[in-house]
Amino acid sequence: MYRQQIQEEYARLVVRVGANLQPGQVAVVSAPVERADFAALVSEECWKAGAEDVLVLYRDEVLRRLRYQFGASEVLEQVPSWELEQRIAYPKGKACYITIEGEDPDALRGLDSIKVGKAVNARNRGMQPFYDLLDREENQWTIAAAATSSWAAKVFPQLAGEMAVNRLWDEIFQVMRLDHPAPVEAWQEHSKMLRRYCRLLNNGDIVQLHFRSGLGTDLTVPLAEGAIWCGGCDHTADGIAFQANMPTEEVFTMPHRNKVSGRVVSSMPLSYQGNLIRNFSFTFLDGAVVEYSAEEGGEALETLLGADEGSRYLGEVALVPYTSPVRRSGLLFYHTLLDENASCHLALGSAYPSNMKGCLEMDRQQRADRGFNESVSHVDFMFGTQDLQVVAQRADGSQLTLFENGIWAV
Amino acid sequence: MYRQQIQEEYARLVVRVGANLQPGQVAVVSAPVERADFAALVSEECWKAGAEDVLVLYRDEVLRRLRYQFGASEVLEQVPSWELEQRIAYPKGKACYITIEGEDPDALRGLDSIKVGKAVNARNRGMQPFYDLLDREENQWTIAAAATSSWAAKVFPQLAGEMAVNRLWDEIFQVMRLDHPAPVEAWQEHSKMLRRYCRLLNNGDIVQLHFRSGLGTDLTVPLAEGAIWCGGCDHTADGIAFQANMPTEEVFTMPHRNKVSGRVVSSMPLSYQGNLIRNFSFTFLDGAVVEYSAEEGGEALETLLGADEGSRYLGEVALVPYTSPVRRSGLLFYHTLLDENASCHLALGSAYPSNMKGCLEMDRQQRADRGFNESVSHVDFMFGTQDLQVVAQRADGSQLTLFENGIWAV
Repeated sequence: MYRQQIQEEYARLVVRVGANLQPGQVAVVSAPVERADFAALVSEECWKAGAEDVLVLYRDEVLRRLRYQFGASEVLEQVPSWELEQRIAYPKGKACYITIEGEDPDALRGLDSIKVGKAVNARNRGMQPFYDLLDREENQWTIAAAATSSWAAKVFPQLAGEMAVNRLWDEIFQVMRLDHPAPVEAWQEHSKMLRRYCRLLNNGDIVQLHFRSGLGTDLTVPLAEGAIWCGGCDHTADGIAFQANMPTEEVFTMPHRNKVSGRVVSSMPLSYQGNLIRNFSFTFLDGAVVEYSAEEGGEALETLLGADEGSRYLGEVALVPYTSPVRRSGLLFYHTLLDENASCHLALGSAYPSNMKGCLEMDRQQRADRGFNESVSHVDFMFGTQDLQVVAQRADGSQLTLFENGIWAV
Repeated sequence: MYRQQIQEEYARLVVRVGANLQPGQVAVVSAPVERADFAALVSEECWKAGAEDVLVLYRDEVLRRLRYQFGASEVLEQVPSWELEQRIAYPKGKACYITIEGEDPDALRGLDSIKVGKAVNARNRGMQPFYDLLDREENQWTIAAAATSSWAAKVFPQLAGEMAVNRLWDEIFQVMRLDHPAPVEAWQEHSKMLRRYCRLLNNGDIVQLHFRSGLGTDLTVPLAEGAIWCGGCDHTADGIAFQANMPTEEVFTMPHRNKVSGRVVSSMPLSYQGNLIRNFSFTFLDGAVVEYSAEEGGEALETLLGADEGSRYLGEVALVPYTSPVRRSGLLFYHTLLDENASCHLALGSAYPSNMKGCLEMDRQQRADRGFNESVSHVDFMFGTQDLQVVAQRADGSQLTLFENGIWAV
């Protein structure tokens, strides 16, 4: 019963803080079909917040797997026009988008990965107008997690059925700060702190970061021209605050596509398309991965790097203290939404327009010239450790130690 | 476990016999979100039958109730264009439609019934092109039932949770003939028998039916001009057989809108918009209900009759033997899909185009002249009894006894 109450509190957090739904808006909610109960709580909260309408789109990983298994590539690679319309048929700023994630990280395991990869990429291209709309930040959007049985079984293989689901819910509640007496206020406080770091970094005229850890990381990450540090919360063009990801512990910015050099060693396994990649490292030269190794999952790593030209270059660098609630849980959640909040990380693949000043007004060449990386993929991997040191270099050549012993030093 | 196996058999029956999906077709499946497990079985069976694609659209009665509760009428009365597109965006005959029903019969109880009624009617109008498509019979379509917890609680209020659901499943299996060793063959046999009755009646030049029972029914039902008896299975324009309703025990035709006279007394309660109407009777004159009474639910009966002009006239007359599996279950399922197969019944409201020769080529006036009734509603009610006698009158004035003691006499 107490879980029901915390779930209600969580739904409130997602709607009021995550999406920050405004009266008169339409909420477009996407959720796993197994969590129709949580979708109903979110939906009710949307109505109470003054939604004009609430549209819930269910995703079903069982049906999706069947479709990838039996469907022909020509069919899988199409996006029907109504499906795009369903998302974008609203005047500017009218909708807000709430995504509840909870899929089995291994849902697609054992399928023809080339067929699936092509279908996923084609689908992403077909839905591009929707992603563009999110990039333009005319609308609030948020992604939050909910426990499902297949995901819970992956995180807690030793627990049976409902016990695993309950345990995963409890862990989610914790990393969402729902164990605080006033979660909404705790979030606002936390968000304020992240924004304070952003301001500090944005005002610091920082041009380059250097990372070093006992694991063997020794990496220089020059930033893109006009790089902006983001974190804590986003704002729509109309100034409405929202949390794109829940939880969020990071402040992050854009590396220069062509200037990263050195070596980075992973500190957590990476779950990629149902495969686990363990103890891996990359060597960068002029921004590109020129050497890589993995104790396990080398083939998946190769697929990842081969998605397209941009998938060998970095699109994001993020700072997360080693004391974050996700890291303290001691768990691998097999979901980037949570895992990326465990420690400092980098992302191979596409950069975020919001991390570069004036990016949306530039053409492709202009932003590429400033160090923006483009790719169909964006894959985060963790390299933060308890001994990680992060030193920033300012435009004037002076240095500022940002992290010492894995946590903020400023 | 045995329920899982019977469910698989049931899914096979729905896909192979109900929809009779042809290789290369797209299956559009609509299902209650609580029965995602059964939707997956149906989906898998569609793929195995050679579907080109399978689209599952989930309905959620909890979300629907919230929407009717909180949403403004202007919003509820709109159908977004993508929603219609989702159903009809296929070349002629390309799709087949599978609807899994299992909603709580009382799902909308306690809501503002005028607001809900207007929204439902507006929604039906908005989706009219889809219903027209079904009427044209270019595509196969089928409606079948699946047990859900809210529905099961209504049918078996004395049983707790999962027990009620399992019991309802078991009853559904039985009325679906899934207790036969070879259900597909049993269905084909049953369907053949119903078609034999149809042929007999269609070749019999029948112009009028007369019903009489000890309960007080004494009703004369002249048929529409060019009335066609249907039952057993339908055929698409391309000659593909399908079962529009599962189960089906009826052969049915079109009464003449303006000629029905006499009195009919109900033999089973009628569940209408969450209200139960018990022990009711109608007196008809020139086709219209001119008097009615009900021991319980009189107000709901009034709403039903007041939906529009056509809701006081008959649109269907159906013959079902009193020995049907649904009647033998002794249950009221609170769902027309099942209950109408318990005994002979009539429907107030719209007639089916398939019950009149050349109907789709006529304009409204032409078909009205021949006795076709039009209405936004179509509500079946049962009046068949163990002693029901049905006598048909041929065009030449001769008579043929169709039912004696509630069962077929021919």
